[in-house]
Amino acid sequence: MKPVVVRTIKRADSNAIGTLGAVGVSTAHEALGRSGLMKPYLRPVWAGAQIAGPAVTVLAQPGDNWMIHVAVEQCQKGDVLVVGCTADNTDGMFGELLATALVARGVIGLIIDAGARDVKALKEMGFPVWSRAISAKGTVKAALGAVNIPVVCAGVNVVPGDVVVADDDGVVVVPNNLAVETAAKAQKRHDDEDGKRKRLAAGELSLDMYKMREGLAKAGLMYVDKPEDV
Amino acid sequence: MKPVVVRTIKRADSNAIGTLGAVGVSTAHEALGRSGLMKPYLRPVWAGAQIAGPAVTVLAQPGDNWMIHVAVEQCQKGDVLVVGCTADNTDGMFGELLATALVARGVIGLIIDAGARDVKALKEMGFPVWSRAISAKGTVKAALGAVNIPVVCAGVNVVPGDVVVADDDGVVVVPNNLAVETAAKAQKRHDDEDGKRKRLAAGELSLDMYKMREGLAKAGLMYVDKPEDV
Amino acid sequence: MKPVVVRTIKRADSNAIGTLGAVGVSTAHEALGRSGLMKPYLRPVWAGAQIAGPAVTVLAQPGDNWMIHVAVEQCQKGDVLVVGCTADNTDGMFGELLATALVARGVIGLIIDAGARDVKALKEMGFPVWSRAISAKGTVKAALGAVNIPVVCAGVNVVPGDVVVADDDGVVVVPNNLAVETAAKAQKRHDDEDGKRKRLAAGELSLDMYKMREGLAKAGLMYVDKPEDV
Amino acid sequence: MKPVVVRTIKRADSNAIGTLGAVGVSTAHEALGRSGLMKPYLRPVWAGAQIAGPAVTVLAQPGDNWMIHVAVEQCQKGDVLVVGCTADNTDGMFGELLATALVARGVIGLIIDAGARDVKALKEMGFPVWSRAISAKGTVKAALGAVNIPVVCAGVNVVPGDVVVADDDGVVVVPNNLAVETAAKAQKRHDDEDGKRKRLAAGELSLDMYKMREGLAKAGLMYVDKPEDV
Amino acid sequence: MKPVVVRTIKRADSNAIGTLGAVGVSTAHEALGRSGLMKPYLRPVWAGAQIAGPAVTVLAQPGDNWMIHVAVEQCQKGDVLVVGCTADNTDGMFGELLATALVARGVIGLIIDAGARDVKALKEMGFPVWSRAISAKGTVKAALGAVNIPVVCAGVNVVPGDVVVADDDGVVVVPNNLAVETAAKAQKRHDDEDGKRKRLAAGELSLDMYKMREGLAKAGLMYVDKPEDV
Amino acid sequence: MKPVVVRTIKRADSNAIGTLGAVGVSTAHEALGRSGLMKPYLRPVWAGAQIAGPAVTVLAQPGDNWMIHVAVEQCQKGDVLVVGCTADNTDGMFGELLATALVARGVIGLIIDAGARDVKALKEMGFPVWSRAISAKGTVKAALGAVNIPVVCAGVNVVPGDVVVADDDGVVVVPNNLAVETAAKAQKRHDDEDGKRKRLAAGELSLDMYKMREGLAKAGLMYVDKPEDV
Repeated sequence: MKPVVVRTIKRADSNAIGTLGAVGVSTAHEALGRSGLMKPYLRPVWAGAQIAGPAVTVLAQPGDNWMIHVAVEQCQKGDVLVVGCTADNTDGMFGELLATALVARGVIGLIIDAGARDVKALKEMGFPVWSRAISAKGTVKAALGAVNIPVVCAGVNVVPGDVVVADDDGVVVVPNNLAVETAAKAQKRHDDEDGKRKRLAAGELSLDMYKMREGLAKAGLMYVDKPEDV
Repeated sequence: MKPVVVRTIKRADSNAIGTLGAVGVSTAHEALGRSGLMKPYLRPVWAGAQIAGPAVTVLAQPGDNWMIHVAVEQCQKGDVLVVGCTADNTDGMFGELLATALVARGVIGLIIDAGARDVKALKEMGFPVWSRAISAKGTVKAALGAVNIPVVCAGVNVVPGDVVVADDDGVVVVPNNLAVETAAKAQKRHDDEDGKRKRLAAGELSLDMYKMREGLAKAGLMYVDKPEDV
Repeated sequence: MKPVVVRTIKRADSNAIGTLGAVGVSTAHEALGRSGLMKPYLRPVWAGAQIAGPAVTVLAQPGDNWMIHVAVEQCQKGDVLVVGCTADNTDGMFGELLATALVARGVIGLIIDAGARDVKALKEMGFPVWSRAISAKGTVKAALGAVNIPVVCAGVNVVPGDVVVADDDGVVVVPNNLAVETAAKAQKRHDDEDGKRKRLAAGELSLDMYKMREGLAKAGLMYVDKPEDV
Repeated sequence: MKPVVVRTIKRADSNAIGTLGAVGVSTAHEALGRSGLMKPYLRPVWAGAQIAGPAVTVLAQPGDNWMIHVAVEQCQKGDVLVVGCTADNTDGMFGELLATALVARGVIGLIIDAGARDVKALKEMGFPVWSRAISAKGTVKAALGAVNIPVVCAGVNVVPGDVVVADDDGVVVVPNNLAVETAAKAQKRHDDEDGKRKRLAAGELSLDMYKMREGLAKAGLMYVDKPEDV
Repeated sequence: MKPVVVRTIKRADSNAIGTLGAVGVSTAHEALGRSGLMKPYLRPVWAGAQIAGPAVTVLAQPGDNWMIHVAVEQCQKGDVLVVGCTADNTDGMFGELLATALVARGVIGLIIDAGARDVKALKEMGFPVWSRAISAKGTVKAALGAVNIPVVCAGVNVVPGDVVVADDDGVVVVPNNLAVETAAKAQKRHDDEDGKRKRLAAGELSLDMYKMREGLAKAGLMYVDKPEDV
Repeated sequence: MKPVVVRTIKRADSNAIGTLGAVGVSTAHEALGRSGLMKPYLRPVWAGAQIAGPAVTVLAQPGDNWMIHVAVEQCQKGDVLVVGCTADNTDGMFGELLATALVARGVIGLIIDAGARDVKALKEMGFPVWSRAISAKGTVKAALGAVNIPVVCAGVNVVPGDVVVADDDGVVVVPNNLAVETAAKAQKRHDDEDGKRKRLAAGELSLDMYKMREGLAKAGLMYVDKPEDV
């Protein structure tokens, strides 16, 4: 890793971002072929937010938030800041002051593979954060990392400019070059689900709706009448 | 494990179910002699629900929710669906569409030793889910499991028809053949606690209320006046 | 460990306690030189409380809450009960009845390196608890521990009388002999942050406010224009 | 749970036990239809042992090994002692003295969903133990559990008399009523593998040996020549 | 993710690979600027091996090893197979038969972010495996993944052809384009350490050897004579 | 925490240290009344060592081993270095070079609540290390901690000069002021165990040897003949 800040990144298509943010994480993840999902240990610090935006990335050292300060300057309106860490760490690398700075630049949320603090203030400000821990543990500003290089965050490789979608179900990353295609598929999927929901609510079985019975029989599923028959 | 669906199960006594649901998990667990409690990593997806019902069971493969679709057809009004998994897994095996299908059949809740998704929708629908994780990760429909065979879920062996009680404190399973007896004990315990609560609120020490002083002295507990005396 | 109850402890200065409770955990932790923070696996059972008080300590055995009953008698108005455990354990050692007893003595909160139960009742009573788990698992009253000896709880050595500060960010312990000095530093830090917040909200970069640019350059941080330049 | 000791259990067929012990855990687990495997957090205290025998079961309380002492008397030559626990616990419930007592009765190994200690002595005695932790933490003898009732251990429901197979790959439990059938399947599987091993060693691809190419193509797998073609 | 197999990859320079394999993981990781290290939950199945080779990559589904069978055909002499998984999973996706197939193609080791089995056989064959778990749990062959696309494995993004170095200290990945440069730095570092080791063995303090005293004093480190002086 | 190095510490009695090292961790832990045991996640990097010595303590920052370098100078022949960390961290803070430096001063082992590396070299040197992880992750030298102040390490508060006993069963800390008394109790316990071992090996039941039958009956244990009688 070279200690470097990349000033110019190619942000994903804004229409695609809008669509992906509207359908949410689960649908976007399905549309992407079930990949790009961050590990489920990342949880929202407060519930209810749903965002999408291009990633500005940070690679930080454990217990050190120097590079987050550096990254603020590289952010634009609508961006999502994504912070990976060179080792597993739960220190509170991010809190109210940094959130204030990001809001001032129009950043709409933070994804951090480490801890966050000032939970109450973040909620009052309405600034959404997805983190692996909540911890008051303060951090030093001593070791360099990098800004806007590809970063692995919670199990996903995030390239600057990729679309980050986050809501109560988690965080998914759609690669920049697949954003438009994935948004279209996601929209279609979203529209289709409405019809399915109505049929299921009316009592139709998914076994029939998805025509699963034949496949199950072929795979060898047997029905018996009583426990003793097993 | 044989890939089998058992169509007929013997559901626990409905009066006992009603009583156990009313007293809640902690009291039911005490009344059962402190057994039958699922591991505390199972948490409610949204807080505040309190349910009890007979178990319909599913054994699923990791990352595969085919058997949950199969199980829907076997559910009746008032049932609780219990999903165990053949390996530790956090994938989002259950979401809004399956919840819609279960609600259409009168199922009152889901216990799953894996992940769930569509958190916001589940909460809006008022369908309670206890899971080990929240994850948008979709699943395949490829490998068989079983429905309505005994299943280990979060550390407890659940036999179809057993009473499942769940609230913000967790999930406890009362075996079918002990349901009536346990419900009676739980009701008595619940009634007794009221009196104790009042005495404690009035300042009586539990040391005196439970007559613990003699036992403590016999076990060797010493009182000293200052830290230096230890 | 000797099975002992120490009756008299030296509680920290009440003004210092008041100040530390007002500024909260993150600021108190910074003022103490970034030490004394309990591990982040301790979480509030319900969100929103912010407390500070002198510690009454308990050392308990896993799955056994006998010593908590013993400790109630040693508590005074304003105290915080801190329970460490001789082995990792998630059993529900604490619930509504013990909370009722503590409230009757004026105790303002509980920190427990084990499980708690009766979540709904604790929230309704407004009694704040920080625990490592929620579990309905009841406990026996069989093995001795100690009350008011130094106890390691969630990674911090707590001496009876130390100041315990707890809020949504976690729990920090300020040693009795540093309480006054730390409270003063914390108040100053708290006052300073207001000015910083305003400057950041107005768009000033922390890079400039903290004069970090020179240090970063000296450490070797490089800026490049495009990804290809790395 | 009732505090009870069941004196007579029905042990599985000894020929089946012999076969299952000879083929080992992975093959036995496959022959059982990929079920019955304990969670992989159970690890051998020392490597290299491979055993099989009928289960004598214990349900113990966390931090309390009273019931293991009770269980010794119920063991016969060739048995495997299986200890489940009512809550997650890593205390060293088992060590050299209990191992000496078990060896005196002809017991061939221990499976414990808690901790073990006296590692060096266990290895020198050649007594194999699979546990979830190694811990010198001693335990009390204060609370009752049960002996020879069905017990969930590391995620598997073990009925007294079931076959327990354990080696460096882990621990699998074959239900008594399936033991003979499973042993036969396991033996066949074991014999078949020899031929496959030779073909693979000679360079044949499993893609061809298992005739997977058509299935893969049907499922949609594409081959491209260079990364740019993806 | 597209279900694709890439047939041609660009393997890293073989001299660089040789050097990196000889110096081992810790030195290679330092030479790379302390990045590229897989998470420490990956452990060798048997101790003592030290390897380096170009990565052939697999993205597998949890509980499904179909794509590993597919990948064998893409391997060449000297390669290291790297398997990432779309969700956290400990199933035994890899064992003796697949190892036999890989050995037949000259593959020198396996890195898998899931489980492995047949521990004893792997050790006897001398085929080294680094995995996150040992588990006898067999897997299905049902869902597609991909071969030779970039894959995140244990927290590191691995591009096919990158150098994988593995020993008892863990696994580090050196990007293909940095392999030659990193190997040179690693060799230099390795040579330098010899001199340091001798000076330290002779009793020289690292405080003096690295000239740390001034920096420590400047940072504010104080020396006192007795505990009371703190 | 003040950034301080305490030069003079009071080491525990050397005879007591000798006795405690000879009986090992499990017996020392029992003799201390079952307290002082570090959490079982601390494991020996290589098996078979058994040591005891007075503690020299280090409080380090996550990912930073500066203070270990500082501590070397404070060590004497026979000491054990104990490293606590201000936050959970698995970085490889300790390796061959530091081990060489410690050996040169006569230090006999290291206990570290973080990671270690150079596993192979440590084993070849015969320098025993107990750590929470093995990781090649290098560390910076940037932030101050302290040397020879009381430090919480793996759940135990270690005061400089306390006796650290470590073997394959784990690590226990005997407070300096209890060392002589504990060593005497441990020796007696060790001698007593020999007789017990012989009686158990001869087939006597611990139920009888410890006279447990009456207590069990009083507590309510029931014996039944067959499973159906439960």
